[in-house]
Amino acid sequence: MATRTAPPPRVRSSEPPTSPVDYAEAFPRSTKVHLDGAHGVRVPMREIALSGGEPPLRVYDATGPQGCDVREGLPPLRRRWIQARAVEDTGRRTAGDPALVPEGLRRNVLRGAGPVTQIQFARRGEITEEMEFVALREGLPAELVRSEVARGRAIIPANINHPELEPMGIGRAFHVKINANIGNSVVRSSIDDEVEKLRWATLWGADTVMDLSTGADIHETREWIVRNSPVPIGTVPIYQALERAGGAAEDLTWEIYRDTLIEQADQGVDYFTVHAGVLLRYVPLTANRVTGIVSRGGSIMAKWCLAHHRESFLYTRFREICEIMAAYDVSFSLGDGLRPGSIADANDEAQFAELRTQGELNRIAWEHGVQVMNEGPGHIPMHLIKENMEKQLEWCGEAPFYTLGPLTTDIAPGYDHITSAIGAAMIGWYGTAMLCYVTPKEHLGLPDRDDVKAGVIAYKIAAHAADLAKGHPRARAWDDALSKARFEFRWEDQFNLALDPVTARAFHDETLPADGAKVAHFCSMCGPKFCSMKITQDVRDYAAEMAAKAEEFRARGGEIYVAP
Amino acid sequence: MATRTAPPPRVRSSEPPTSPVDYAEAFPRSTKVHLDGAHGVRVPMREIALSGGEPPLRVYDATGPQGCDVREGLPPLRRRWIQARAVEDTGRRTAGDPALVPEGLRRNVLRGAGPVTQIQFARRGEITEEMEFVALREGLPAELVRSEVARGRAIIPANINHPELEPMGIGRAFHVKINANIGNSVVRSSIDDEVEKLRWATLWGADTVMDLSTGADIHETREWIVRNSPVPIGTVPIYQALERAGGAAEDLTWEIYRDTLIEQADQGVDYFTVHAGVLLRYVPLTANRVTGIVSRGGSIMAKWCLAHHRESFLYTRFREICEIMAAYDVSFSLGDGLRPGSIADANDEAQFAELRTQGELNRIAWEHGVQVMNEGPGHIPMHLIKENMEKQLEWCGEAPFYTLGPLTTDIAPGYDHITSAIGAAMIGWYGTAMLCYVTPKEHLGLPDRDDVKAGVIAYKIAAHAADLAKGHPRARAWDDALSKARFEFRWEDQFNLALDPVTARAFHDETLPADGAKVAHFCSMCGPKFCSMKITQDVRDYAAEMAAKAEEFRARGGEIYVAP
Repeated sequence: MATRTAPPPRVRSSEPPTSPVDYAEAFPRSTKVHLDGAHGVRVPMREIALSGGEPPLRVYDATGPQGCDVREGLPPLRRRWIQARAVEDTGRRTAGDPALVPEGLRRNVLRGAGPVTQIQFARRGEITEEMEFVALREGLPAELVRSEVARGRAIIPANINHPELEPMGIGRAFHVKINANIGNSVVRSSIDDEVEKLRWATLWGADTVMDLSTGADIHETREWIVRNSPVPIGTVPIYQALERAGGAAEDLTWEIYRDTLIEQADQGVDYFTVHAGVLLRYVPLTANRVTGIVSRGGSIMAKWCLAHHRESFLYTRFREICEIMAAYDVSFSLGDGLRPGSIADANDEAQFAELRTQGELNRIAWEHGVQVMNEGPGHIPMHLIKENMEKQLEWCGEAPFYTLGPLTTDIAPGYDHITSAIGAAMIGWYGTAMLCYVTPKEHLGLPDRDDVKAGVIAYKIAAHAADLAKGHPRARAWDDALSKARFEFRWEDQFNLALDPVTARAFHDETLPADGAKVAHFCSMCGPKFCSMKITQDVRDYAAEMAAKAEEFRARGGEIYVAP
Repeated sequence: MATRTAPPPRVRSSEPPTSPVDYAEAFPRSTKVHLDGAHGVRVPMREIALSGGEPPLRVYDATGPQGCDVREGLPPLRRRWIQARAVEDTGRRTAGDPALVPEGLRRNVLRGAGPVTQIQFARRGEITEEMEFVALREGLPAELVRSEVARGRAIIPANINHPELEPMGIGRAFHVKINANIGNSVVRSSIDDEVEKLRWATLWGADTVMDLSTGADIHETREWIVRNSPVPIGTVPIYQALERAGGAAEDLTWEIYRDTLIEQADQGVDYFTVHAGVLLRYVPLTANRVTGIVSRGGSIMAKWCLAHHRESFLYTRFREICEIMAAYDVSFSLGDGLRPGSIADANDEAQFAELRTQGELNRIAWEHGVQVMNEGPGHIPMHLIKENMEKQLEWCGEAPFYTLGPLTTDIAPGYDHITSAIGAAMIGWYGTAMLCYVTPKEHLGLPDRDDVKAGVIAYKIAAHAADLAKGHPRARAWDDALSKARFEFRWEDQFNLALDPVTARAFHDETLPADGAKVAHFCSMCGPKFCSMKITQDVRDYAAEMAAKAEEFRARGGEIYVAP
């Protein structure tokens, strides 16, 4: 079947989505520019044009190439880099139902024929194109990126079968990143919903996307997603393995799981959540919790361990898992299957027992040249957040921490993007490298398009607030540009500099829709007479005049006036 | 004009509001109950009935009496208490255009004929009805409340001309409180919009409301608001004084300001924001800021100081202001007129100079027996928040701190309820007693009904997260009740326990509207097969069984099994 005649993704099962917003609509007066680096690396940035003689502002851009046909996938940016390495072309095409995945969307599967992981290159002192790309993106020296990757303090999730990827780094020295989860479930959603969610999530700033699909067409959905994703794709392979085991946790086997890992690595998944730290002896530690085990992967493995009264095969076969992942440069996201699901269960014995085991597994992954990060909680009240970061740094050898929130209270279902953005910002400041978003639908239902955007924006706020507090060298410029625009009543600039220009403009226009108001020296909050910004301009003029007078006075030999 | 025939508040000028939600609709299965205390004090609580044999949960309730006629005002709960004190009835009725304020809505103005402030009673060792009320509300001993008020570490804003008030306390030892701002501006809004906003804000949990009206009918709007408010009302009297001065800051005089204070104190306003810390010599410190002076009151006074090249009359006449406020028990909210309006200006010399002066003024207020709290910023990145709290505690003698956010980044106009909820939660944990809400419309326009609710809910989250982190003895029970309901799939209980039951239920019903789903052991997030909570129930049963077996084994003299 030729590419052009391949069927488009299937018709939505649910109600039509709200009208799509493209890059130009979402970010008026923004253009995608590229920074040129060594080895022909070209890194996208978003450049926001400003008025009033202000220089344009460039910001980190994870939106990826725009306008590509979903049936062809994105251009294979990394192909040349990868082909120059120790890889072998297996000759196999990635799989999938041909009625669902057009031939043109598939790739030949590559495998490493020698060391191919970023940490292996970094340890050898090699700065890869991916590291160069990350360095330019972050505004940091390439050597720093290499050294952080070599020490395991940063990862660049980049499967050799995902050439469409624009490489990004996850580590404490970099911008704090955010992940958005997508994925259907049995109850609703379809393939094209998921690709659309991917595009939508990255449009607003998701740095990685996890495909958590558990329903039908899980393989084909993933193929569409990976081929159309400029950001790393993460999965939780145990979900698909469980489908293959007929849905019964106790029927899972190492062989089923291994084959699932290979299938997903073949497709180009960049990181795997593996709940290998859920040990048999930890399970009873959760029995007296208020909310037991709330991680899906964690509960599946706990059930398996108990059913067989044996140690988890994820733990006993961990070295074999490492070998598979090393051959593709798939990174570990070591799952926190025993994370607390409520304030009551925060920082308990079960949680920290697993975290220690994560640290043990990190060292094994590193031995095998596999990149690794650690997943963290969950539900944690503010005063207990820092302990999580401190223990992770200490026990897990400073590998990147990747937390879900944490939610700082349980009492606000419907608003958990906010309860968790509070904790996310704090733990990001303390050193967490990536924040897994939470949408307003958390605990209540499957997020729709609006929820995905709400979650992404809340987390971009948390991540940027953390960058500011950490003192990332590039963070402050954005705040300053926006504040200056605000103070100078450059309303259009203020909207265009906003994380979400569409909403900022719409809110302003609700009360002052006329074009004249866009240059007015007031808004409807205070009205024209009381605008403090306008008054302050007067004060500033006055203060300048006073300073000049004082200078003149002093020049004539007088004394400086000091107010009583 | 008789009460019954008084005109209702004027017809809205703007589009019709979304359908009103009353107490029963907002909080299904909640009933208002009362705790009986000494002196006949009866304190409202909201009691949430639960299923599954769980005891009902009682939570703090600031919604006030429901179902009262707006043209009659609320019942005068405090009248008897106040009349038993050293007050004189001036015989004057509160003023206002009779075409706008019905006679039945007005009150006789009272003034103190001796010490009438809560701090004066507290210092004499007297536990007033207000203190008793606060103690029951907070779940703390009345003697602790008295002692906190006596030391100036807490205030109970309670004008003797606001008998409708349900007393509440603001202090570090109490629940963190939130304030919602309402108020029209020249551009839009009308009287009944404002009363409706008051009811709406308190319905969702505002603990105090500031009336920041600057437009027409400012006096009459306030009369309607105070008479219908169960929560303390705060104002910024300089706004009205400026209207009287014809809108030109330089034409303001002490006399105009004094008369405005008295007029508003007569009406029953409970606390005044007074920007007395904006000194002439501090003004030039703001000249090189990115965003200058962003407080309206601060910029008005700065302009006045510069125009006259004299010290602010708020500062030079501060003792006279204290005398006026003491006669009514109006509390100070000492304004932070030089608070930073951007991340760039955080914690600068201007800001901290004013904070030191606030501390000096606190001591003068206390000398005069006036209750006082201090307003704080503003825009502060996370790593600079704590310094604000520490300096305020040290310089301001541990008076309650009342902060606006702080916003932790400037890049998200349209979402500043979130940028600021992060900072609000943190500073609440560090010791701030009250958080002034920020709505999504901040910096962009006048908030409407939905924005007010969004701001209140975001701040209830921040306040509760802070209560949890501070370890307020009553905080955890709410989280635990909700988490337990979640774990046991008591969906109706989970909704009813939510801060916003309406939204929680609506989100769930978007994907699973059938009534059967309300008792289902899954939701659309994960679908029936993958529900971790369900699996965990199985794990728990299994673990209990294992523990029983181990016990049996041990009883038979065997050794405990230890997993490898």
